[in-house]
Amino acid sequence: MPDLDPRFDELLRRLGEISDLQRAVGLLVWDQETKMPPLGAPARAEQLTTLARLGHDRATAPELGSLLEELREFEESSEPESFEASVVRVARRDYEKRRRVPSELRAEMTRAGSLGYGAWLEAREAADYEILLPHLEHRLALTQEYVACHEPFDDPYDPLLDDHERGMLTSDVAATFARLKEVLVPLVAGIEEPVDDSCLHGDFAPERQREFSLEMLSRWGMDDQAWRLDDTVHPFALSLSESDIRLTTRFDDDNLNGILSCLHEFGHGIYERQVDGRYFRTPLQEGTSSSFHESQSRLWENVVGRRLSTWSFFYPRLQEAFPHQLAGVALDEFHRALNRVAPGAIRVDADEVTYSLHIVLRFELEREMLSGAVTPADLPEAFDAKIREYLGVQPANVVEGVLQDVHWSDSNFGYFPTYALGNVISVQLWERATSELGDLDSEFERGEFGTLREWLREHVHRWGSVFEPADLLQRVVGGSLDAEPYLAYLRAKVEALAPR
Amino acid sequence: MPDLDPRFDELLRRLGEISDLQRAVGLLVWDQETKMPPLGAPARAEQLTTLARLGHDRATAPELGSLLEELREFEESSEPESFEASVVRVARRDYEKRRRVPSELRAEMTRAGSLGYGAWLEAREAADYEILLPHLEHRLALTQEYVACHEPFDDPYDPLLDDHERGMLTSDVAATFARLKEVLVPLVAGIEEPVDDSCLHGDFAPERQREFSLEMLSRWGMDDQAWRLDDTVHPFALSLSESDIRLTTRFDDDNLNGILSCLHEFGHGIYERQVDGRYFRTPLQEGTSSSFHESQSRLWENVVGRRLSTWSFFYPRLQEAFPHQLAGVALDEFHRALNRVAPGAIRVDADEVTYSLHIVLRFELEREMLSGAVTPADLPEAFDAKIREYLGVQPANVVEGVLQDVHWSDSNFGYFPTYALGNVISVQLWERATSELGDLDSEFERGEFGTLREWLREHVHRWGSVFEPADLLQRVVGGSLDAEPYLAYLRAKVEALAPR
Repeated sequence: MPDLDPRFDELLRRLGEISDLQRAVGLLVWDQETKMPPLGAPARAEQLTTLARLGHDRATAPELGSLLEELREFEESSEPESFEASVVRVARRDYEKRRRVPSELRAEMTRAGSLGYGAWLEAREAADYEILLPHLEHRLALTQEYVACHEPFDDPYDPLLDDHERGMLTSDVAATFARLKEVLVPLVAGIEEPVDDSCLHGDFAPERQREFSLEMLSRWGMDDQAWRLDDTVHPFALSLSESDIRLTTRFDDDNLNGILSCLHEFGHGIYERQVDGRYFRTPLQEGTSSSFHESQSRLWENVVGRRLSTWSFFYPRLQEAFPHQLAGVALDEFHRALNRVAPGAIRVDADEVTYSLHIVLRFELEREMLSGAVTPADLPEAFDAKIREYLGVQPANVVEGVLQDVHWSDSNFGYFPTYALGNVISVQLWERATSELGDLDSEFERGEFGTLREWLREHVHRWGSVFEPADLLQRVVGGSLDAEPYLAYLRAKVEALAPR
Repeated sequence: MPDLDPRFDELLRRLGEISDLQRAVGLLVWDQETKMPPLGAPARAEQLTTLARLGHDRATAPELGSLLEELREFEESSEPESFEASVVRVARRDYEKRRRVPSELRAEMTRAGSLGYGAWLEAREAADYEILLPHLEHRLALTQEYVACHEPFDDPYDPLLDDHERGMLTSDVAATFARLKEVLVPLVAGIEEPVDDSCLHGDFAPERQREFSLEMLSRWGMDDQAWRLDDTVHPFALSLSESDIRLTTRFDDDNLNGILSCLHEFGHGIYERQVDGRYFRTPLQEGTSSSFHESQSRLWENVVGRRLSTWSFFYPRLQEAFPHQLAGVALDEFHRALNRVAPGAIRVDADEVTYSLHIVLRFELEREMLSGAVTPADLPEAFDAKIREYLGVQPANVVEGVLQDVHWSDSNFGYFPTYALGNVISVQLWERATSELGDLDSEFERGEFGTLREWLREHVHRWGSVFEPADLLQRVVGGSLDAEPYLAYLRAKVEALAPR
């Protein structure tokens, strides 16, 4: 019995310890963003730094490397999809990638990220890009140094992308994004008068939005044995184990965005919730990549969450929660408002059709900065030029332009593309699911979502990180990344919204 | 400049890391008791075990011991009360005590405690002491082994007491408790008809109790910049730093106990809140002992929190919160009800006068078990005999008798006495404060509590763990542990409540 190898038990022990530290970091962050009194911040920063360092030390310990080497034969004697082989394979990949980066560089990136974040807040406050500029220059230099640790590669962007999408190549993303641009730029340019979405704005008591959201999510599969929903400023989802799922949201009192944000975070949550419990405390225990995670949040928020059949069940309930505001608004009007398309400068406010173009331009700019074709000093102008070209809008100022996102101040390059890849994958999965399951709309109309949820569990969720994203996609849809289903879906959406 | 010694910086770095791990454990526990979805429990146990082990490994690392040895001269060159000397002294004491206990014994105690806790829950459910018995026997054997690690000592109970009260001797506690018994047993026996406290029972909406409690505590010094109040089953207070204080409580809908519980936890919280910020991330950062901590919770809950002058300010506000329930209840009637004395079997429901007798009997039984004079098999009978003798009551069954407390299943012996010592110390401090500050009642009547709070900060709180409890007491009140002020306070309370 290969799994009786005591070295494998030792590996599980070490990986379990690393996982516990990472999950504890998760709780420290969750608490910081939802519960912590403001004056708790300095102590929290110390606690986070210590736990992250202890986790990193363990994840890069030479003893772990030796153990993984010794387990090569053990790995090869097991089926590639088996628990044993997958744990060793994924742990080795993580270990080897982490070991390439000197601790000093990693520490300096963390420090620069933290200072950059402060500078970004200040730059926004002062509406002055110059405040961020030196930080971005430093951050870019560090990123280039980080990239150099990963030679050889086909494209300098590959190691950055790989941090979020194991094994994905920049050339594949570039090809997909070129196709998105080719279709979406003219599609967006052709949109005439946007749909009236005034019914989504008004006086919507946050407590009622919360109750409604919880009712909706409980129909989707959330329960209070394993899930929570809390308030925060910037919504996120996080799991402390496959049975401790924390969603966060922000309910404003003048719009219904918070409900949609709940649906989005539910997608992340259900992915983590349905990972095979056997992967607990191993590197297999989380969703396989950022784009696959985003595919789940987008699937539930957009494909299911803006669908007529879904709302034909939930809308009467929403009307009951807000009779004064919605009694006179027909389902069809509400559904059209939810699906409004209108180009704008702000990524996080973008609709489904324009959203990916915001991502495409950021991906292009990251690559151009990395190659030196665009310098940080050029960035505001380059940003505005692209947003004018792709979306036909001009940001009112730098705060609504190049300073709108936190990503270039405190995180690594390489994350942005996963948002648009998530959109693409969400529709590939949906097409596959409905081709296997047939019409789901009649179930949705009855408030039943279990068929879709279970299909996702079976084909995507339960596998955690066993498969790399491209392999998982191949396994599920029988093909590779393909923008066409997503583009067809968007075209249909725009047509359906055309003035009648 | 002695504090430029790089070895001291290295010590601070190591102690900071240990502190961060302990505080992270604190958050894991707080979350578990207040927020965690039930199914999060197994993962939380793993996370707690890992973080506690990492903290323990660091706190007993030989390198820490060497560093502390090397810093002896540095310590001696600083004033004993200085930050530098105190950090080294307290860290060395902690280190040396921890090093005496083999890791295997500590692990087995943790394991046995966890199993014992499960057995205790089961035993209560079944009202069957036999379920707990083998666990208690095992736990007692481990405790004896633990005690033996600390030879030589005057009394085998000394090392257990010392875990909670650095430097305190069992003989001092025994003398104090003998005096408590001598006075309190006849005092309790002489109580005739208890005061009517029916006004404290009725229909009290938890949300209003929470609002009122927060209003009261904000007058006392709580604010939302550094404090929180959350719901839990068994109330506790915990600090994640001196500016991140978490109080927890339980508001029932049929009584006002939850408000008193808030006042109690506030005492713990304000102690931690007022520790000198310079002690952050060192072993000086928390209150000096369990009994000093309890002295603060009892001072605010009982001495201040059941005082007429306090309620002459707050009672009209409480009446506003519960007009239907309290409009017809006069302040004096409410105040008498709050101070009701009536012997009963349950420790946690006990009033101020009878409470300490519950503790005295547990202290005696712990010592008798340690010496073998009482075996775990004898315990139920011995427990009932003492409670009859001291309090004149007979528990209805084992659940209300020997099984009522969790302490003998999952924690160490040695903790119980600190509850009664806290009562004793609380009145010693109060006497001293009022002898220096004069009449505080007129301030309390105006809703002003800052004079007392600042006095406690100056004389007790800010010192954190710089002084051992006996030294701190000596410094503040100019004497040692003394039951007389507490006994006089209780006598006066009983007299004031006598039928009029």
